[in-house]
Amino acid sequence: MAKQKKQPRPKAQTPKGFRDYFGAEVTARAEMLQKIAGVYHRYGFDALETSAVETVEALGKFLPDVDRPNEGVFAWEEDSDWLALRYDMTAPLARVSAQYRNDLPSPYRRYTMGPVWRNEKPGPGRFRQFYQCDADTVGAASVAADAEICAMLADTLEEVGIPRGDYVIRVNNRKVLNGVMEVAGLSGDDKEAERGIVLRAIDKLDRLGPDGVRALLGEGRKDESGDFTRGAGLSDAQADVVMGFVEAKAKVVRRLKLEMSQIEEEEGDNFDPVQSPGYTLLSQAVHQIEQPGGTSSRVLLAGETANFRINDYLKDLVAVSIIGTEGVAELEQMAELLAAQGYGPDRIVIDPSVVRGLGYYTGPVYEAELTFEIKDEKGRPRNFGSVAGGGRYDDLVKRFTGQEVPATGVSIGVDRLLAALQAKGRIDSSAQGPVIVTVMDRDRMADYQTMVAELRNEGIRAEVYLGNPKNFGNQLKYADKRHSPIAIIAGGDEFDKGVVQIKDLILGAEIAKNATLEEWKDRPSQYEVPRDQMLAKVREILGTS
Amino acid sequence: MAKQKKQPRPKAQTPKGFRDYFGAEVTARAEMLQKIAGVYHRYGFDALETSAVETVEALGKFLPDVDRPNEGVFAWEEDSDWLALRYDMTAPLARVSAQYRNDLPSPYRRYTMGPVWRNEKPGPGRFRQFYQCDADTVGAASVAADAEICAMLADTLEEVGIPRGDYVIRVNNRKVLNGVMEVAGLSGDDKEAERGIVLRAIDKLDRLGPDGVRALLGEGRKDESGDFTRGAGLSDAQADVVMGFVEAKAKVVRRLKLEMSQIEEEEGDNFDPVQSPGYTLLSQAVHQIEQPGGTSSRVLLAGETANFRINDYLKDLVAVSIIGTEGVAELEQMAELLAAQGYGPDRIVIDPSVVRGLGYYTGPVYEAELTFEIKDEKGRPRNFGSVAGGGRYDDLVKRFTGQEVPATGVSIGVDRLLAALQAKGRIDSSAQGPVIVTVMDRDRMADYQTMVAELRNEGIRAEVYLGNPKNFGNQLKYADKRHSPIAIIAGGDEFDKGVVQIKDLILGAEIAKNATLEEWKDRPSQYEVPRDQMLAKVREILGTS
Repeated sequence: MAKQKKQPRPKAQTPKGFRDYFGAEVTARAEMLQKIAGVYHRYGFDALETSAVETVEALGKFLPDVDRPNEGVFAWEEDSDWLALRYDMTAPLARVSAQYRNDLPSPYRRYTMGPVWRNEKPGPGRFRQFYQCDADTVGAASVAADAEICAMLADTLEEVGIPRGDYVIRVNNRKVLNGVMEVAGLSGDDKEAERGIVLRAIDKLDRLGPDGVRALLGEGRKDESGDFTRGAGLSDAQADVVMGFVEAKAKVVRRLKLEMSQIEEEEGDNFDPVQSPGYTLLSQAVHQIEQPGGTSSRVLLAGETANFRINDYLKDLVAVSIIGTEGVAELEQMAELLAAQGYGPDRIVIDPSVVRGLGYYTGPVYEAELTFEIKDEKGRPRNFGSVAGGGRYDDLVKRFTGQEVPATGVSIGVDRLLAALQAKGRIDSSAQGPVIVTVMDRDRMADYQTMVAELRNEGIRAEVYLGNPKNFGNQLKYADKRHSPIAIIAGGDEFDKGVVQIKDLILGAEIAKNATLEEWKDRPSQYEVPRDQMLAKVREILGTS
Repeated sequence: MAKQKKQPRPKAQTPKGFRDYFGAEVTARAEMLQKIAGVYHRYGFDALETSAVETVEALGKFLPDVDRPNEGVFAWEEDSDWLALRYDMTAPLARVSAQYRNDLPSPYRRYTMGPVWRNEKPGPGRFRQFYQCDADTVGAASVAADAEICAMLADTLEEVGIPRGDYVIRVNNRKVLNGVMEVAGLSGDDKEAERGIVLRAIDKLDRLGPDGVRALLGEGRKDESGDFTRGAGLSDAQADVVMGFVEAKAKVVRRLKLEMSQIEEEEGDNFDPVQSPGYTLLSQAVHQIEQPGGTSSRVLLAGETANFRINDYLKDLVAVSIIGTEGVAELEQMAELLAAQGYGPDRIVIDPSVVRGLGYYTGPVYEAELTFEIKDEKGRPRNFGSVAGGGRYDDLVKRFTGQEVPATGVSIGVDRLLAALQAKGRIDSSAQGPVIVTVMDRDRMADYQTMVAELRNEGIRAEVYLGNPKNFGNQLKYADKRHSPIAIIAGGDEFDKGVVQIKDLILGAEIAKNATLEEWKDRPSQYEVPRDQMLAKVREILGTS
């Protein structure tokens, strides 16, 4: 202690990029995660909680600089080892799968939820510690495992409170993309750099549009600020192949519309869209591709048509590539398996625009998008966007054992999903405060404690005011800050008469806000009841009687 | 990837002192913590989750060596700051209380649960990451706050499955100890070193016995190995005072026994212990001091007597010390408040042998001990021991703000409490495995998925075997490893006949273990049922129909 006194006072602050979570922020997340765990459990997934700390070696990062081994992780040296906080849940899963390979069942379905840490520059809403919630199946080569995870993801979203029609799970397959690369002459080992640029360009379709992507496939692109991004340097022919993939949805839509105008033309003056089932289906398929999801049974048929047309288009596009053809077949197989379980295109759709950034995906990739609109900070409507994503990665465990182990899995962005539930009004963030037993007479503390014990024993959240009781106003201010529904008041008079005063704080606040003096008189928000009826009255006010 | 290939394969290992938790280990803990959170919530405590990372400055540790700032925490340098993983939940609470002091209610009741990290030498069963579960009240000077936490601790233990009588919460007060120091002439600022030695000596009473403690109060003590521990160097008179405190329980017991023998003597030949209520009460009070806890109503009276006698003894011991007398008065007040709420000495007792190591406690200290016996690794019975502890610490927030903020709180040793529940058979660690739908025909995958979806939709944990289906024996081995209660089997024949085979694996295992051939025949563990009765039969076997 003597040493401490000499030092200046420490700053009471979370480190930059870290934050604390209070009250309902903690419990709402815990409740959501518990619901998710329930779905995962039902699907046969087992819980796993790995240590937060891993060796840098096991995490699979390099040490370019001994003093600061890694910009992406929080790391420190211990004896001759470097240790680090996990930056995701997949690297620890790979380590666990290798370490316990003789004890774990195979296939191994596991889920895990917890914080991960990234040593990145923090920004607004971007923190260096955040939650992830993952489910993976290790050791299953069949795309049935991928289909299962997509179905589970749909169930999960509905379980936590996203209704059907407000989300869509988009599925693609990296093998199709690899087929496209092959067709475009970009498949050799020496083309890795180009492929990287192409992948990143495709991933930017939403933001840059087809022209922007096209520019990045060629020489490069100058953005609004004048900065130049170097492109992949593809020839026009090569770029056409890639753009054929990038614009797959637009091209399928164009074909569908062509067929629609053909019907219109054939029927001539007799054409009535309502009377033409073929026309209607095509038109709905167009809509389904442009705005997937929805809950009507018509969507199912239109969605099947859309999926089929897209697959067909992709099949043609990669026809000369073995890997590409395999990818399209896998997409078909997943769509069939999912349809058999009742997961039609109203929930899960094939979408070639899904790329997913990470290089390690080797087969199916999938992501969950919320399709309802929210207002952005400027009040403009926008789609909520992606809340979960994943895919198949067959090489991760190989790093440790040399053996290739097929694996597929999904990661839910916990904070984003919570924010979505909040936006949908599915979370009661004003969690119920406790009933406050106020302290009028310090010497009666045992009596107040008895009251509060009586309430708690009946499962009612309750507490005695434990601050300095001198100023009664402070006690009511405290009750207000705690969002207390009820204050119980008992001083010498009340104890003499054998009664307590029960103040309905919610009603009281309403009356104070809205009522005229007349109403105020007629609707008292404070009741005097005999001591032995305290519990009954509290229950009545809380609506739990 | 090219870079990686050149490196040797990484070792798939958790860092030294860290571990992973699988399946029921994760869910049993989560369920226990959820029950605890429920009790805390009912008592008006709000959840808080602070970031895992703090500045070393905020944690309140020093930097004796810039390269390795702290042996106790995991720390790393960032720009000019040192960051570290939290080593407990109290230091972050102090930081939060200071940082948000204008926004938090006062008093602030909060609970928190999560991992903490200690950079210590790992040992058997001693890990460098473990869970803590804390509840604290910040800003309440009254010992009513301490009493509340003791009551809450009792409720918590019962809620998670420790029955009344199998635990006891021991309460003491540091002020009594300070009074003893004062009486022994050890209260000056210059006596800090001696007080530290005395405190540590008292804390070792269980292990060293009174003679060992006495030796440490004087010149010192040589242990069995011959190592010498330097003592506090107290005079005999000083040591007598401290020993009077250390042996308080023994001395009170001696007095009670003296009174018992007086009754015996007075009644002479007529003495019959069963006929003498006074004698019985004294004898039970002795028992209550020596083995506290218990559920009978007689224990309450005996416990009150024991508490009263101990308080009385302490009052005499520290009579000349103001702080000591205050401490005894606080103990009395807590006992009264607790009794008013129904927490008698069958659950919460006054016990002067409770010291609690940490120097920062300033008033009441308390700990929860489980009193049932378990067998140690050598099969000898021993008490389970302490699972939670805490006390009042009034100086922690002052480090940041200069203002003294009274606080009191408890920390539950999550792993120890879980181990206790396991020892009591309160945790079903063989959590129910999923129903396994086996794969007889790879081309029927959609049908198998449909079966499994049907089961899941009814809330039954179920999965399709997703490994290579070629070897059917492997599928049954997998079901065994997963502790599956049921396997569903359907091949071409079954599909043709419109039936499925349902194998009761639990019954099957029992029959295989115990039954004779005759019984085996009579009690089939495999049923053929029409496909549309699959769900009903599965429910029947699981006992959920």
